[in-house]
Amino acid sequence: MKGFVFHGPGQASWQDVPDPAVKEPTDAIVKVGVVTICGTDLHILKGDVPEVRPGTVLGHEAVGEIVEIGGDVRTVRPGDRVLISCITSCGRCRSCRDGSYGQCRGGGGWILGHLIDGTQAEYVRVPCADLSVHPLPGALRSEDAVLFADIFPTSYEVGVLNGHVRPGDTVAIVGAGPVGLAAIATARLFSPERIISVDLAPARLEAAHRLGADAVADAHEAPGQLVDDLTNGLGADVVIEAVGVPESFELCTRMVRPGGHVANIGVHGRPATLHLEDLWARNVTITTGLVDTHSTPMLLRMAAAGRLPTGQLVTHTFPPENMEEAYDVFSKAAETGALKVVLGGERYEVAVPAA
Amino acid sequence: MKGFVFHGPGQASWQDVPDPAVKEPTDAIVKVGVVTICGTDLHILKGDVPEVRPGTVLGHEAVGEIVEIGGDVRTVRPGDRVLISCITSCGRCRSCRDGSYGQCRGGGGWILGHLIDGTQAEYVRVPCADLSVHPLPGALRSEDAVLFADIFPTSYEVGVLNGHVRPGDTVAIVGAGPVGLAAIATARLFSPERIISVDLAPARLEAAHRLGADAVADAHEAPGQLVDDLTNGLGADVVIEAVGVPESFELCTRMVRPGGHVANIGVHGRPATLHLEDLWARNVTITTGLVDTHSTPMLLRMAAAGRLPTGQLVTHTFPPENMEEAYDVFSKAAETGALKVVLGGERYEVAVPAA
Repeated sequence: MKGFVFHGPGQASWQDVPDPAVKEPTDAIVKVGVVTICGTDLHILKGDVPEVRPGTVLGHEAVGEIVEIGGDVRTVRPGDRVLISCITSCGRCRSCRDGSYGQCRGGGGWILGHLIDGTQAEYVRVPCADLSVHPLPGALRSEDAVLFADIFPTSYEVGVLNGHVRPGDTVAIVGAGPVGLAAIATARLFSPERIISVDLAPARLEAAHRLGADAVADAHEAPGQLVDDLTNGLGADVVIEAVGVPESFELCTRMVRPGGHVANIGVHGRPATLHLEDLWARNVTITTGLVDTHSTPMLLRMAAAGRLPTGQLVTHTFPPENMEEAYDVFSKAAETGALKVVLGGERYEVAVPAA
Repeated sequence: MKGFVFHGPGQASWQDVPDPAVKEPTDAIVKVGVVTICGTDLHILKGDVPEVRPGTVLGHEAVGEIVEIGGDVRTVRPGDRVLISCITSCGRCRSCRDGSYGQCRGGGGWILGHLIDGTQAEYVRVPCADLSVHPLPGALRSEDAVLFADIFPTSYEVGVLNGHVRPGDTVAIVGAGPVGLAAIATARLFSPERIISVDLAPARLEAAHRLGADAVADAHEAPGQLVDDLTNGLGADVVIEAVGVPESFELCTRMVRPGGHVANIGVHGRPATLHLEDLWARNVTITTGLVDTHSTPMLLRMAAAGRLPTGQLVTHTFPPENMEEAYDVFSKAAETGALKVVLGGERYEVAVPAA
């Protein structure tokens, strides 16, 4: 089969790789139908995630059809259409018993396209299939469902829930890429007073408006001032970091009000400076996190009911074999206006807003 | 009257100062009976708290007798013995209505010995007296009660509650000064499985044992290894920072388990490095905070009932006029073995453990 193989920082290609096979009785083999590229994949290509070994097939988000299962798999069978979650969970370890599936100590966690071969291929082996794929409701198109492999549960759990967004809050979201935009959509579920989106790219700020941001700020132009102006100098109740560079994290800690929350979603490759000389007395809560995907079934139901704006997030679609072109378009988002790019499925034509 | 006046970094003296007078109808004037010195006062003398103006009387912890009240004070009257809380609260602003008295936006917060003259004097003016002093139960000696002006509520609220200590937890507490030791005592209220105390000073680690630490680690000798050994490599559920230097904060972030809490209590004068390249995926929660003192009445009741080991924390007592000597002994804790030093009151002789 074909797969997209990481060969080291800056190097990857769509190439022949061995077909996956069931290794453990809890495995499932899934024929990939729709697959996407994550900002995290770009971090891997930048070298920010050094534990990814050369030779690994990338990708941790897909929708597909079960084609084979091991003898212990109980909840899905061949022919089922499933969402492959970015998180694999054994269900038995201390972390899984706490609902911390992302921190699974029984061989799961974020392993697809990270520690084992991932979903950017024609077929993928999914360990611990019972807990690591989600059968899909018929009402949800695969091209929409694939957004629930990672970005919707990540933005919701690691951004909105960790940030404790509540009704009436002022929420600032730094970064209006796919995860930051999904954070706007999922923060709205808690009826905040206002959502302020911050990004460098005008096209992304336009997308933020379409997703429901009440105000947008160019990151070049003192976004903290806008937050101060809107909150009488208090600062935002919740600030969500959805970029993954020290500068944006540090901006978040300057925009939060005393007693507020900074929820980091971004994948970071470098340390940040934590200004404890300012923050020690400000009752700030800072969280980091890998998604657990405990919210995935609920979010899929909300999407099937039309309660989440999935259609706003996909800007480009490609046939699966155009993976390298899709990476190129996604990685040059500033030029191409790309938000989420999707490979496979029915929708090869989408409206691309001007970059 | 006499008071201990800050003159700039490294400079302070016990000297004549004007008597305080009622300025606002919500003020009370308190005759100071028992007063103590906080590690925060040493941070002020180091220059870590630059907003303290030269000429300010230091001190934010005391027990005394109300001698005069403004016309709007309702809950105390002259003759009452009261604890002066380190936090003053207006009770009316947004922060106070949220119970965030430490972040009071109505003229309170931490102001005594910080923004206005404090308690290291013969008399002190306490604004917003109704909410900022606590009448004391007769069973509690002033020398014990003074520990509830700051260190007990601070260690409990900013360390134990912010850190979400729960039954069965492994709790590591970095720093075994008065606040770190009070954190051991108040963490025990939640029945953790074990408390590990980390400090540089053998005498303080002995005190930690007396206060109830189950294990102690010399900060020079890879304390993270002890935590790993005791937790099968998982890390501590909760790590409490009670020092206030970047190195100890960074140690805390290395000792915490995935999904765990780092609760910073320390007063910091410099930024720390936050290793987001390691922490982004570890579901860590980091909190900072100034105490709100919402727990002070409960802690006073627990102390009056003999449920908190107040007697273990005071190593030196002095007559009030020996303030400069008391500062000298407290600031040279590594030589003197000082934990909490108390001025005034009945107990001028205490057992001092060998340093």
